[in-house]
Amino acid sequence: MSGLGEFDLIARYFTRPAKRSPLGVGDDCALLAPAAGMQLAVSSDMLVEGRHFLSTVEPARLGHKALAVNLSDLAACGAKPLAFTLALALPQVDEAWLEGFSRGLFALADAHGCELVGGDTTRGPLNLCITVFGEVPTGGALLRSGAQAGDDVWVSGTLGDARLALDVFRGRRTLPAELFALARARMEEPTPRVALGQALRGIASAAVDISDGLAGDLGHVLRASGVGARLDADAVAGRLAIGAHALAATAGLDAQARRACTLAGGDDYELAFTAPVTAREAVAQAGRASGTPVTRIGSIEAAPGLRIVDAQGAPLTQRFGGFDHFA
Amino acid sequence: MSGLGEFDLIARYFTRPAKRSPLGVGDDCALLAPAAGMQLAVSSDMLVEGRHFLSTVEPARLGHKALAVNLSDLAACGAKPLAFTLALALPQVDEAWLEGFSRGLFALADAHGCELVGGDTTRGPLNLCITVFGEVPTGGALLRSGAQAGDDVWVSGTLGDARLALDVFRGRRTLPAELFALARARMEEPTPRVALGQALRGIASAAVDISDGLAGDLGHVLRASGVGARLDADAVAGRLAIGAHALAATAGLDAQARRACTLAGGDDYELAFTAPVTAREAVAQAGRASGTPVTRIGSIEAAPGLRIVDAQGAPLTQRFGGFDHFA
Repeated sequence: MSGLGEFDLIARYFTRPAKRSPLGVGDDCALLAPAAGMQLAVSSDMLVEGRHFLSTVEPARLGHKALAVNLSDLAACGAKPLAFTLALALPQVDEAWLEGFSRGLFALADAHGCELVGGDTTRGPLNLCITVFGEVPTGGALLRSGAQAGDDVWVSGTLGDARLALDVFRGRRTLPAELFALARARMEEPTPRVALGQALRGIASAAVDISDGLAGDLGHVLRASGVGARLDADAVAGRLAIGAHALAATAGLDAQARRACTLAGGDDYELAFTAPVTAREAVAQAGRASGTPVTRIGSIEAAPGLRIVDAQGAPLTQRFGGFDHFA
Repeated sequence: MSGLGEFDLIARYFTRPAKRSPLGVGDDCALLAPAAGMQLAVSSDMLVEGRHFLSTVEPARLGHKALAVNLSDLAACGAKPLAFTLALALPQVDEAWLEGFSRGLFALADAHGCELVGGDTTRGPLNLCITVFGEVPTGGALLRSGAQAGDDVWVSGTLGDARLALDVFRGRRTLPAELFALARARMEEPTPRVALGQALRGIASAAVDISDGLAGDLGHVLRASGVGARLDADAVAGRLAIGAHALAATAGLDAQARRACTLAGGDDYELAFTAPVTAREAVAQAGRASGTPVTRIGSIEAAPGLRIVDAQGAPLTQRFGGFDHFA
């Protein structure tokens, strides 16, 4: 406790000169206007200690993650970040925590030109709620509902590393220190695929961000689009970045573990998306232009349901559900 | 616990057909576009149990209040409500609670044509975070920064009733049952002054909503406008609605109690606003048109600071600070 009041707290850590918004932090509302021909894309995510982050996370990494998970939703729509609001419940005023949190938050915000335009602070169990605003050409947003039978299924970046780190924290797995540090950084400082999302506008037929595991989140696309899909489990498992590390074999990362982490890991914040077969070179170019690896992992089929097959085309018997915060 | 998963939960209680937003609840982002010539006014408020509401509140009243405090911010900007997102942390899936909460929430939302367009649900200590979106003509928003020396200071509706109820809950005061029920309803189901806020566009020079007490919130206007004010404590105290009730005298509501509740009560969700002396009839007309009582309670002066005086013009010695969630 420092004796800082709520308003001093806001002023010290969260007030910066307004740029994009006609009004910065401090009036009853912020004012925003998308440019002519643009729609505003809006998403809200709430992060709770012990569920979305561990008490051991460094405040700067938490500041990064709180915004990253929201930027990831903008990425999935192909929207360009503009602004965000932050509502924050804190058990006490802890200046070291606030300094680190705001530093991590603003570093990512500045990297994406995303301005804090308002919010709320209160005392309570630690809770972070960010609402983010992006801009997308009217009618040009990537949706979950556009996948067509015959489309390829793609995924960005790498999968499953965050889940490996969580397993270590939970005492369900051990990893060499070097692998754990890599996996932990992916869990605590995910990279929202903002540039890729924008590059995929007009190319991808559907997109979703992978926050609850590939199988579960791709399931949302399939239901919204009224289609099914066949996924190559080994192509997916190949996206486990630290699985390619020289130490991985000695860490017990067998095929089963790689599949579980990559297909149903959660907390990846990569994009899963679909695109016509004719767009393969365009997708590859979008990946290069945005500096983001993209990997083809399956195809959309007319029959509903998600079929996960091994390298021989045989269906896996292992079940992979989505991560459900209430399950 | 019902066994309902997160996604079923969202579907059952919070999915309704999309009207205004091109996308309803369920994609990564909602898409919004203000009409031509309009800006989007945005505000986020987070409500925490024990701080913004008591565990004894009926879920339907809590649903009402969670949206009402956000609509009140739109009212203070003169914005017309359009849409909102809801992020919700719940300790467990309680269907009776969800049914009541969503009923109260949507009743108020429908009354204002304000559509739920997205959100997030998670398990955690009870926390409600709403971000609300409204529309205001570009350049026409009521701000905190426009008050001028010589302007009148006005307040809408009634003040202090919520604080009286809170005092009873905290065991600091007793009230006859009839008075307590009236005060409690004001605390638990505040009326956001949305129509008045819009009617005051082009008339009021500055406005703020009173969530943390009149003296504290008016202080924000004074600082943002670089002015001071003189308030008539008795005119303010006269706005204690249940203070005018026949039972009030026997409930110990003396002048001191009336002043404390009305000047620094908190949770009123009325508007405090300023307007030129020449606009008195226009303000009265805005009040009539919106069915909202408006009362002149003081005037803006060039000298900084808030001076609260009694009927004889003598300064009060009692101190009235703003409610501070971290004090």
